[in-house]
Amino acid sequence: MFLKPRTPRIPMRHGLPPWPHPAIESRLMMSIHEKFSKLATDNAPGQEVRRRSEDLALLFRGEPLEGIPVDFSHGDVDAFLPTPGSFETFEAGVVAGGRHAYTEYRGDIGIRQVVAKRLARFTGASVDAAEGMIITPGTQGALFLAVACTVSRGEKVAIMQPDYFANRKLVEFFEGQIIPVHLDYANGDERAGIDLDQLEAAFVAGAKVFLFSNPNNPAGVIYSPQEIGAIAALVDHHGAIVIADQLYSRLLYSGNTYTHLRAAAINPENVVTIMGPSKTESLSGYRLGVAFGSKEVVGRMEKLQAIVSLRAAGYNQAVLRGWFAEPDGWMDQRIVLHQAIRDDLLTVLRSADGLSARTPQGGSYLFPSFPDLVVSPQDFVRILRAQAGVTVTPGTEFSPYCANSLRLNFSQDHEAAVQAMRRLVTLVERYRK
Amino acid sequence: MFLKPRTPRIPMRHGLPPWPHPAIESRLMMSIHEKFSKLATDNAPGQEVRRRSEDLALLFRGEPLEGIPVDFSHGDVDAFLPTPGSFETFEAGVVAGGRHAYTEYRGDIGIRQVVAKRLARFTGASVDAAEGMIITPGTQGALFLAVACTVSRGEKVAIMQPDYFANRKLVEFFEGQIIPVHLDYANGDERAGIDLDQLEAAFVAGAKVFLFSNPNNPAGVIYSPQEIGAIAALVDHHGAIVIADQLYSRLLYSGNTYTHLRAAAINPENVVTIMGPSKTESLSGYRLGVAFGSKEVVGRMEKLQAIVSLRAAGYNQAVLRGWFAEPDGWMDQRIVLHQAIRDDLLTVLRSADGLSARTPQGGSYLFPSFPDLVVSPQDFVRILRAQAGVTVTPGTEFSPYCANSLRLNFSQDHEAAVQAMRRLVTLVERYRK
Repeated sequence: MFLKPRTPRIPMRHGLPPWPHPAIESRLMMSIHEKFSKLATDNAPGQEVRRRSEDLALLFRGEPLEGIPVDFSHGDVDAFLPTPGSFETFEAGVVAGGRHAYTEYRGDIGIRQVVAKRLARFTGASVDAAEGMIITPGTQGALFLAVACTVSRGEKVAIMQPDYFANRKLVEFFEGQIIPVHLDYANGDERAGIDLDQLEAAFVAGAKVFLFSNPNNPAGVIYSPQEIGAIAALVDHHGAIVIADQLYSRLLYSGNTYTHLRAAAINPENVVTIMGPSKTESLSGYRLGVAFGSKEVVGRMEKLQAIVSLRAAGYNQAVLRGWFAEPDGWMDQRIVLHQAIRDDLLTVLRSADGLSARTPQGGSYLFPSFPDLVVSPQDFVRILRAQAGVTVTPGTEFSPYCANSLRLNFSQDHEAAVQAMRRLVTLVERYRK
Repeated sequence: MFLKPRTPRIPMRHGLPPWPHPAIESRLMMSIHEKFSKLATDNAPGQEVRRRSEDLALLFRGEPLEGIPVDFSHGDVDAFLPTPGSFETFEAGVVAGGRHAYTEYRGDIGIRQVVAKRLARFTGASVDAAEGMIITPGTQGALFLAVACTVSRGEKVAIMQPDYFANRKLVEFFEGQIIPVHLDYANGDERAGIDLDQLEAAFVAGAKVFLFSNPNNPAGVIYSPQEIGAIAALVDHHGAIVIADQLYSRLLYSGNTYTHLRAAAINPENVVTIMGPSKTESLSGYRLGVAFGSKEVVGRMEKLQAIVSLRAAGYNQAVLRGWFAEPDGWMDQRIVLHQAIRDDLLTVLRSADGLSARTPQGGSYLFPSFPDLVVSPQDFVRILRAQAGVTVTPGTEFSPYCANSLRLNFSQDHEAAVQAMRRLVTLVERYRK
């Protein structure tokens, strides 16, 4: 069963003993298959079109429910339009020509200088445009690079449960070892509900990286100042790196305060913050994100971006010039409209027996739990789409313990979303155990 | 020195023995540093602005040479403009809105169907738009995904020397084991000059992946029908995967024929072909590429793209509708203009003692070799930029044996490029040993 490393005739790679041992080489060949079998995307948002649905009809109860189909798997950029002027700033990038087509891998310095100032003001801590910031193809691009640049094979990584599904997949892809940290999002009242004892235990166990989204995706809860302060203290004490996904930190509902981890008492080199204009600003079609903070990590991210995608599309980068510079009142208006949808969806949801959800404090995700049904949660998600034209993301994408939950991105046409929620409630009643 | 794996108390990961051994864990922590130190980008095209130049002046001989600065590290999209209509097709994508902002991870099916037909016609073999093609953020994005989806840790990979520098870096990043295959590009006359015995030896030694660019980057040579046939036979015989980077396969100079590997006698599942409109078509600012061929590999690539960048920017994907549908004569004209620049640069180059280059058969790269100088090749590259406003890419980026070569992308303003080549020749004379 055990394998003795071969004699050192073979040159050392990465200063490591000569892996792979010949006897495990065949297993390594296998490992790429296993690696990709873990990367299943069939239930990922946007991929529903690729799912087969034979035999699903056998499970149907009752007639299809009429109504405008709503895809809650992502925001509707036709209902909430991209920031005014975004196309014009893109056009200016094209007109600028070569200067914009070929930027540094980390992005155009002029744009980084403009955006760094605004991000510093927004987050309450300075941003080094030259060395401490990189422009990426979407926040997904930033997240991938940040994990790739901090998680080496076998390294322990603390991630929240539930949290954005890609966090888990990224750590698995780089063969890190996940240490889950429980988020009691449903009962956190003033707190998001992070189990700080579990986080500390993860660091004590050797975790050197902590990855989390705030507001939490999928639950929409915001970490309290006390929670952020405690995270900062633990990260510094254990000399870890924290990757803070703040994609939704601009979309905050009334009565909530947001605490930026990077502005807390923490070593700036221990934090990488990720943001982008894809969600609240509806600029997803331009694939833009930024990562800022730790200069060492950002430096590595640029080296990796050079072989992953070279750079965020050069012309698209120009669109960031309009970020955090939206017309007066535009963002307030967008928040008010989302809050109204949130409240109406919660009213419909809470009118039904056994359906419940904590009120999202920020972002446009609703993460309700539903009662036990006569069909599996996976099948219920497919039935919802087939019988009611309602597309949602299964809770298991976010945590193995959230099978009875669904994620809905409610950045949608208000009335269509409310009607879709009514159909969802109706189907829950139909299929209730 | 050697380490005995720990007792199997720890759960197996990926069906592998319980790595990392605790005693190597610290080395693994190190390994990510080593990994990224190998990913140096300081000499990569476009990154010259980040290089420090203190003390360089001490090496100067003579006065600076006046002239329009030319950046030969990449094409000048202001000299050769993007395909007519590209911006308008982008605009149509933005107008289409949500449908375009959120596509499948592998790209919009409508666009894939349009492009697949044209790629099939161009390459002479069918392309499955649904299962056998993916749209990526640039050809770099396709190359990264293709290598990540075929090269597992410790796996042997055959790559050409010289070839595109990212090929080597990608294999190293995924901890594959490079088996170099010599390309005698300077003397290949009718052939590109691949050493087929070395390629066969690589497969016999266990290489399961072969990665190469055709036309070759940096030398601009094209693999002959016999060479392509032999590669196909070896790949099939050894059941390997070949990744063919055909980025420049549309820009062919008079008197040359191009053979598409995927149209040769080869198992279609053994080939992934990569192309994109970033170079010849000057659409680099949109970051678009495609990979097509092996359905299994393309399927994996989509799973990985889901966590790397989600998708090529949705609006940008629309630009592909104009690819391979340029106005009549537009491509012929573009080829004629590049051939004229190529020929004038070669005339200047060959007028100088000790400077030589094989005539590029396709693409817009020139890869001359220069005589021994009193300064190091690295310093000469920096002196060229500082004293003559001429930016080139050092040969060592492409092969450890090409220190005395430079790569020039001659997709530039014709007259400015010729003047810049004259300045290059002058500096070679100045610093000649």
